[in-house]
Amino acid sequence: MKPDQNVDLNTLSTLPTIAHRGKSSLREMLETHVARFAELQEAMYAESRQALLLVFQGMDASGKDSTIKHVTTGVNPQGFRVSNFRQPTYKDMEYSYLHRHWMTLPERGRIGIFNRSHYEEVVTLRVNPDLLAGRKLPPRRIDDGFWEERLRDIVAFERHLGRNGTTIVKFFLNISKKEQRTRLLERLNDPTKHWKFDPADLEARSRWNDYLKAYESAFAVTSTKQAPWYIIPGDNKPAMRVLVAAIIVETLAGMKPRYPEPDAALLRSIKSARKALA
Amino acid sequence: MKPDQNVDLNTLSTLPTIAHRGKSSLREMLETHVARFAELQEAMYAESRQALLLVFQGMDASGKDSTIKHVTTGVNPQGFRVSNFRQPTYKDMEYSYLHRHWMTLPERGRIGIFNRSHYEEVVTLRVNPDLLAGRKLPPRRIDDGFWEERLRDIVAFERHLGRNGTTIVKFFLNISKKEQRTRLLERLNDPTKHWKFDPADLEARSRWNDYLKAYESAFAVTSTKQAPWYIIPGDNKPAMRVLVAAIIVETLAGMKPRYPEPDAALLRSIKSARKALA
Repeated sequence: MKPDQNVDLNTLSTLPTIAHRGKSSLREMLETHVARFAELQEAMYAESRQALLLVFQGMDASGKDSTIKHVTTGVNPQGFRVSNFRQPTYKDMEYSYLHRHWMTLPERGRIGIFNRSHYEEVVTLRVNPDLLAGRKLPPRRIDDGFWEERLRDIVAFERHLGRNGTTIVKFFLNISKKEQRTRLLERLNDPTKHWKFDPADLEARSRWNDYLKAYESAFAVTSTKQAPWYIIPGDNKPAMRVLVAAIIVETLAGMKPRYPEPDAALLRSIKSARKALA
Repeated sequence: MKPDQNVDLNTLSTLPTIAHRGKSSLREMLETHVARFAELQEAMYAESRQALLLVFQGMDASGKDSTIKHVTTGVNPQGFRVSNFRQPTYKDMEYSYLHRHWMTLPERGRIGIFNRSHYEEVVTLRVNPDLLAGRKLPPRRIDDGFWEERLRDIVAFERHLGRNGTTIVKFFLNISKKEQRTRLLERLNDPTKHWKFDPADLEARSRWNDYLKAYESAFAVTSTKQAPWYIIPGDNKPAMRVLVAAIIVETLAGMKPRYPEPDAALLRSIKSARKALA
């Protein structure tokens, strides 16, 4: 999304245009991207000057988990880390809502992956403001201005990270309500997936349009040049993975990670080590 | 290693017996193990009652990084986390040496992978006791009794984890001094790997037998039934990976992770959700 653009999620297609390609063709495309991702990650790790933060948001069953799994398979697990943000604990709530996200930011040379993120604080909470009661916030009316403040704080947070070497990319996996129904039913009919079922999923589904509206408001303010949102059509999983992987590769390539040049002292010790071993 | 067994690392073969198999056969074996690893990990994650801690130790260039990468490729990255332990920071040194390891233990349902570990504290430090000076320890003579105490504390630490649901498996990747020479020279001759070179590697190499002796002392005390050491012949990387993956699978299978049975309340809400969606 371009900065300051408004988007109406209901009008966007949830089917990627590349979905007509065959499964094996999509798998090949994914493999090519992931191989390049792995190369660039290694260079970034060696360089150790920049970091990358990937944010994944989407309705339940939009494929966040499986997309993260597929686009990282083959990438060195020591170079990235997935943080899953479920409900905050009572300890988290002793701090500002950004605190627990600060705690797992990627260090220089690394990739951080947020599976759900600080955006829950301006989406799920905006749809369910009752949840704010547990947060011990300073007294304040919960009006549009309150959410606008949160969005501005998030922009400032992400801008600060950008200024200090962390590139941020945000994905919204956009599925149709119909596709979600199919996937939820699949889950319900598969006993090995019963443990994943949370009655709250249906609750969120019943407020579908409220969620989309909260997302749209968030995108309008927080899609910046330094930390853009990408709305990925999500009804076809293999195609969605290809799109996400392609954007990661493009972003990393744009960061131009470079293997560090050894300085004179290191070159000298490499030379003498070679002699000692030979 | 069996508990209370003594081992002489210099007499053990560093070439796995399965190394004579062809590369493609070894790759197939690895793939089979990793697929099973991924299945068991998923069940353990669903169960969320037990954790698994994998410890990797070995001399420089013994293949810790690449082994970890290969045996986890295809396993859901959200189910495990690799912790790399390099020199402790000055903040780490404000605490007991176990503190930073406590900080990244796997939670229930997860797998923790330690790339180097608390064993550096009884191996590298035992070979280089000067490093203890920075540790702000209570005054105490650094004699055999000191190291024995550390080993006993480590046994107690691991026993405690075992009692509380974390299974521990420890791998020592055992390469020959000759093989290390080959690998270090390869690194030195490849400019894209210069950044990995640390002059300290050669320093450690020059004290090869001291390191092996420190490892042997550690194994004798800390290879317990609950947290055994496996000494993996390391001179052939593809074969080594197969061995490590096989042990992980065997361990996980022995933990018998089971998808949780939904309780009556969950079953009811699954039933009504199915009705609502249909």
